[in-house]
Amino acid sequence: MRDRFEGELQAVTDQLVEMTRLVGSAMNRATTALLDADITLAESVIGADERIDSLQVALEEHAVTLLARESPVATDLRLLVTALRMSADLERMGDLARHVAKLARLRYPASAIPPELRATILQMGQVAERAVAKAGSIIAGRDVEAAVQLETDDDEMDRLHRGLFTTLLSDDWDYGIEAAVDVTLCGRYYERFADHAVSVARRVVFLVTGERSSVRDTTTLTS
Amino acid sequence: MRDRFEGELQAVTDQLVEMTRLVGSAMNRATTALLDADITLAESVIGADERIDSLQVALEEHAVTLLARESPVATDLRLLVTALRMSADLERMGDLARHVAKLARLRYPASAIPPELRATILQMGQVAERAVAKAGSIIAGRDVEAAVQLETDDDEMDRLHRGLFTTLLSDDWDYGIEAAVDVTLCGRYYERFADHAVSVARRVVFLVTGERSSVRDTTTLTS
Repeated sequence: MRDRFEGELQAVTDQLVEMTRLVGSAMNRATTALLDADITLAESVIGADERIDSLQVALEEHAVTLLARESPVATDLRLLVTALRMSADLERMGDLARHVAKLARLRYPASAIPPELRATILQMGQVAERAVAKAGSIIAGRDVEAAVQLETDDDEMDRLHRGLFTTLLSDDWDYGIEAAVDVTLCGRYYERFADHAVSVARRVVFLVTGERSSVRDTTTLTS
Repeated sequence: MRDRFEGELQAVTDQLVEMTRLVGSAMNRATTALLDADITLAESVIGADERIDSLQVALEEHAVTLLARESPVATDLRLLVTALRMSADLERMGDLARHVAKLARLRYPASAIPPELRATILQMGQVAERAVAKAGSIIAGRDVEAAVQLETDDDEMDRLHRGLFTTLLSDDWDYGIEAAVDVTLCGRYYERFADHAVSVARRVVFLVTGERSSVRDTTTLTS
């Protein structure tokens, strides 16, 4: 019995890791769609979000079934509860990638991102993808040290996000209000994506060490 | 034993309802702080968010303790899992109220909101507060019908949010980029707040009926 349960707990972990892979791929493709004004790619990201949503529902059902059937306590219970929370973070990250893709679609055939900000958005996309890939490894390996290091990626995201605002608010900005609105929303999507990756990593730390650090939303503009 | 457990389940429900009250009050005061450029009120909202965060942690600990001790199945299990998810929504709503308050503080002694948009933001604040108050009643009464009606408030929020963009993107906008960025972020905070209220309501529906409707993020600009 115990062996079977162990196997099912591992399956929950595997489902979470699979979600990180899908979510990372979605953000990678959404960023490319945004920068290249590639509507086909944008549509594919928007369409693929359903798969992430249904994985999350399946994971939740699976976790609740295990809670009911096995009446776990201690670490096993904590793992299942944590998995529920992490799957919600990951589902939300999928939504944020979809939002980036929707912005690409909305402005097609133009790109929503002015040339001066392309490099910054590209880097934000890379940091986002790296952060969720690391979150996947952290889940798979219950790696507390890597979880702490992930905060560095989040700091990098905040620095890039502040850079966006510096450009937006400079006297040289000649792309008007619409582009400013697009860039503001886009920046927020990437920042929140990285925040959720950090949140996932912190839940692993809590699971392993029992120490809870609060999940922040850094809101670059106003913090 | 069953009586005691019933009492503890009721206590979890009460904690959720208390969170809706605190979160609604926070958004009410944040909106006033924003419109009146009232820094004292803004600071009080920012400071009070810790209370919401710690209520959420306490609720989570309580739910996990009950899961471990009572090994609930069926509806009791589902109620506790749903409570975990709802508390996360409510904690996030507290963050969003705090963001509005931080924006008020950032632009003090000016108001971040241009005169033309004050009425819209006031209404968005009212819809947000009403939505979370209804969510509280829905949790307390497991009221499926009211949960369905809450979607109307969310539609109203989306309409108001679209109105913000119409004003922002009109040729008459003379408040520059900074105000446009502020209004864009602010609009997003209110919209997300209402989305989370709807999400809470839908979880009650799922709890009562077993029917799941997906939680949407309407992203007015790009949907």
